[in-house]
Formats: sequence, structure tokens, C-alpha cells
Amino acid sequence: MEKDEEFLKAYLQDRKKLVEEALQGFLAPHGNGPSEIYKAVHYSVFAGGKRIRPILCLAAVDAAGGNLAPAIPVACALELIHTYSLIHDDLPAMDNDDFRRGKPTSHKVFGEALAILAGDALLTEAFVLLSRTGKIMLPAEKRLSVIREIAYAAGISGMVGGQALDILSENMNSDENILSEIHRRKTGALIVASVKAGAIVSGAGKNKTLALSRYGLNLGLAFQIADDILNVTGDSAIMGKKTGSDVARGKLTYPSVLGMDAARQKLQYHVDEAIASLTAFDERARPLRVIARYIENRQE
Amino acid sequence: MEKDEEFLKAYLQDRKKLVEEALQGFLAPHGNGPSEIYKAVHYSVFAGGKRIRPILCLAAVDAAGGNLAPAIPVACALELIHTYSLIHDDLPAMDNDDFRRGKPTSHKVFGEALAILAGDALLTEAFVLLSRTGKIMLPAEKRLSVIREIAYAAGISGMVGGQALDILSENMNSDENILSEIHRRKTGALIVASVKAGAIVSGAGKNKTLALSRYGLNLGLAFQIADDILNVTGDSAIMGKKTGSDVARGKLTYPSVLGMDAARQKLQYHVDEAIASLTAFDERARPLRVIARYIENRQE
Repeated sequence: MEKDEEFLKAYLQDRKKLVEEALQGFLAPHGNGPSEIYKAVHYSVFAGGKRIRPILCLAAVDAAGGNLAPAIPVACALELIHTYSLIHDDLPAMDNDDFRRGKPTSHKVFGEALAILAGDALLTEAFVLLSRTGKIMLPAEKRLSVIREIAYAAGISGMVGGQALDILSENMNSDENILSEIHRRKTGALIVASVKAGAIVSGAGKNKTLALSRYGLNLGLAFQIADDILNVTGDSAIMGKKTGSDVARGKLTYPSVLGMDAARQKLQYHVDEAIASLTAFDERARPLRVIARYIENRQE
Repeated sequence: MEKDEEFLKAYLQDRKKLVEEALQGFLAPHGNGPSEIYKAVHYSVFAGGKRIRPILCLAAVDAAGGNLAPAIPVACALELIHTYSLIHDDLPAMDNDDFRRGKPTSHKVFGEALAILAGDALLTEAFVLLSRTGKIMLPAEKRLSVIREIAYAAGISGMVGGQALDILSENMNSDENILSEIHRRKTGALIVASVKAGAIVSGAGKNKTLALSRYGLNLGLAFQIADDILNVTGDSAIMGKKTGSDVARGKLTYPSVLGMDAARQKLQYHVDEAIASLTAFDERARPLRVIARYIENRQE
């Protein structure tokens, strides 16, 4: 059998291409929006994102034996929501980051007003994409379920609530419970929604949907721990953003709360749990499995 | 027959009460969001809004002879989206307003970061509300149509695009075409979506839906012209916000582009057109008719 590494590389490349093409098509100016807002939206959506969430959605469809075509607009909507959250998180009033993936952040290029609006636009257009006529070949009930999952994950119970907690907890005493809560919401919720949306699109049964959610929950935590570790040990040239910024900002992170060794152990634990939740799936879940291992060893 | 004025007062009171109660129920902390974000969301949603969009939605349902109950969550979602847009528009990077409806704006009370997040939360929770299980007694197809209308109106083709145009056009040469374009998107699109959502919920036929859209389009323009006029002539004590701010900021407005007399004529024209588009409707469209007259004479 092909080695995991080669398999993953080919899989990510192929799925990423599907997503890139679909995003290009969807974000082509409709002819009726001011060109500046399209420029700002394009700038951030095509700034070199790894498309983790869309790929997870498609990999869940693969695992559940579903059809890829109806999942592609859903995958794109997830990326739009992720990109909106990055633009708003980078704003001066929030994390005040000048660089993201090696490029100046949206507000550095377009100014704060347009950056706020570009984020607002991406969040809203995700729901345009999920609801528009004729683009998603799914029964209305399934589409509504997908919208519900994604909206819930992006809202107060998920991403927005997590970002609020994150900001409110800066320079607070370290506490692993708060930290887990922040990440479960801030990054975890949308990752869970990505695999669950894949399960809904594929018509997966209750047990498989639950197993995929468990995978997503563990993967999301692993992803965040790896992110925190990289912020300390990572090579800023590879990552395209400053490292060490969490410490400078007094942010709660896994290494700062648990120490580096325990943080690495925790990362390993959640990767193992993610993979263990897929025992009921056959070889078609291989992408999900190798993605989990990849998170464990990520360099960027 | 009851005088228009009394009829309108009673109607607005009654419908507003329905909306307020539903908003209170929906925005009760779910027990799993950080309390600060709920505080910020509550502060702006219950800051004395007139609930024009929800009331227009319900009045369209009345006009089309539909059921109010399934329209109420839709009406609330419209108000959440409207409130989000006010919070973001008031931000220092945007219009930099310190007061709204006589109260300090969100960022003055909660800081910029939480104000941005409160806006993001309201926009997202609108879609949670529109998609959640068991709360809207509507077939999935109709719910999807409502989501589509509202998302489209709030997105790049509508509200966000209009706000971007508005900011980009500050201190530009006055041009009535640009001005109409800004307002058609910035306020008009969501007002049209409000009456169209009412039409969809009620299962109104094609002609009635078109007539209601025409009403919304004209009402939206009338509403904005009245707003611009009030910004020049209004009593800031009644309005709860500074007047004269548009001129100070070099903003394009109807009085600045057309002159005050022509602006008043245009207001009258759109109110008449709005009412004329309702000829196929019976007495049940009286609320929509008197609301149009009220816009013409608004003092706040």
C-alpha cells in the first residue's frame, strides 16, 4: 500500500483543487457588488489557506460513502466562515495581527472599515451559498440541517462565544478548563460542524454521525494544541506569521498552562482518540485517519 | 372607521409587543455563552428600536392573509440582522458614532472587540433562529426560501455592499445614482426582504409577492430620504442622536444632492408609489398603507 505520507499529499492536493475551483467560481464578482469589497474578500480567501475544514467535510463524505458534488458548496461555505473569523480576529481591536500566512492582514491592506465589512460579507455569503437555488443538489430538509449545524457552530455557542471568552481571558490566571472551553468553541465547533455536515450530506446513520462528531471534537482540540505548540517552537519562516506572540500577549495556551511535555502528550492523546472513534469505518476513512496523524506532526 | 393615526398606534403597539416578547425568549442566555457577549447583544437589541422591519414582515403577512405565528421567528431574525448592522456601522473605523437612540453605542460601553463580536453574534444567531428545529412551523422549502432572501439582502448584493459603497463614497462628488444605489442596498434590500419573507411565509402568489416587493423597494427609499431629511431638520432630543452629523462628515444625502425641496418631493413620490403598489390588496393591507404615510411624516 501507498505510504501514508504520499497518500495524504495526493489526497489533500486533489481535494484542495476541488475546493479552490469552487471558491473561485462562487466568489467571482456577481456584477453587483462594489469591486473593493470583492477585492478584500478575494485577498483573504485566496491567501494560501490550507482548506482544512472543507477537506475534513469532504473526507467525512468519503468515509461515509457519500457523493462529493453536493458537499462542495457546503465545504466552501465552511471556508468562507473560517476566513471571516480570521479577518475579524486579526483586527486591531482584537488580536491586532499585522501578518497572516506571510501576507499583511486585511485591515493592513484595505483599512479597518473594509476589513470589518469583508468579514461580515464572508459570513453572510456563506449562508447565501448554503441556501441558494440549484447549486446544492440536496433535499431541503438536509440543507436546513446543514445550515443549522453550521450556524450553531459559528454563533454564540461556538466560534463567536469562544473568541469572546478568549479575549476576556487574556492575562487571567491559567486554568485548563477555561482553555478547553475556549478551544472547544473557537476552533472545535466549526471543525465538528465540518465533519457533521459531511455526514448529513451523505445521509450517514446516527452511529456513524456520532462517531464522526467524536472524531471532529478530538481533532479540533489536537489542532489547537498543535497550534499553541507551534506558536512557541515553530519556525516563523515556514509558518508565515510571528511565533512567540501568544506569550507576549499573555494568552492562555496549552504549553503555558500544562507545560510543553504535558501539552505534547495531550496532543497525542486527542489524535489517538480521533482515530479510535473511526473503528466502525472501513478503508474509505483512511483520509480522516491520516489527517489526524498529520495534525500531530504539523510544522505549519 | 378608526382614524389612521389611532389605528396605526394600536397596530404598532400590538405587533411590537409580539416581537419584543419573542426576542426576549430567543435571546435568553442559553446557559452556554459567555455572559458578556449576551450582555452586549441584549444591550443593543433592547435599546429602543422601533422594530420597523419585523413589523413590516408581519404587516405583509396580514396583507397576504397569512398566519402570524410562523412569521414571528422570521421577524425576529430580521431585527437581529438590523441590530448587527447598526453596531458595526457605529464602530470607530466606520461611522464612529458615540450615541444611538439616546444611548452610548455598543463599543462605547463594551469596547470595540466585544462590539465587533456582538455584531458577528447577532448576524449568525439570525441564521440559527431561521434554521433551528421546531421553532418555525413552515415546510423546509419555504424556510430555505426565507433564508435565501434574507441572506442575499444582508450580503454583498445588499446591506454589506451598500455600507461599503457608503464608506467609499464619503467626500466624493455628489451623484444621485450612487446615492440611490447605496440606499437601495444599505437599507432598501433588508426592507424588501422583510415584506418578501412575509409573502413567502403566507404562501402569497407571484403577483402579490411582486407587489409587496415593489412596496418594500419604495418604502425603503422613502425611509432613507426621511432619515436624511431628519438628520438636517430633526430635533436631536426627540431622535436620541446627534443631527447634522451627515453634513459634518461630508456624507452624500438626498438633501445635499437634490436640495431640501426636491428631497421632500422625492419622499412624497416614493410613499405614493409604495401605496399604489398595494391596489390589488384589500383592507387587510391597511397597516402597510398607514405605515407608508407614517414614514412620510416621521419625526424620529
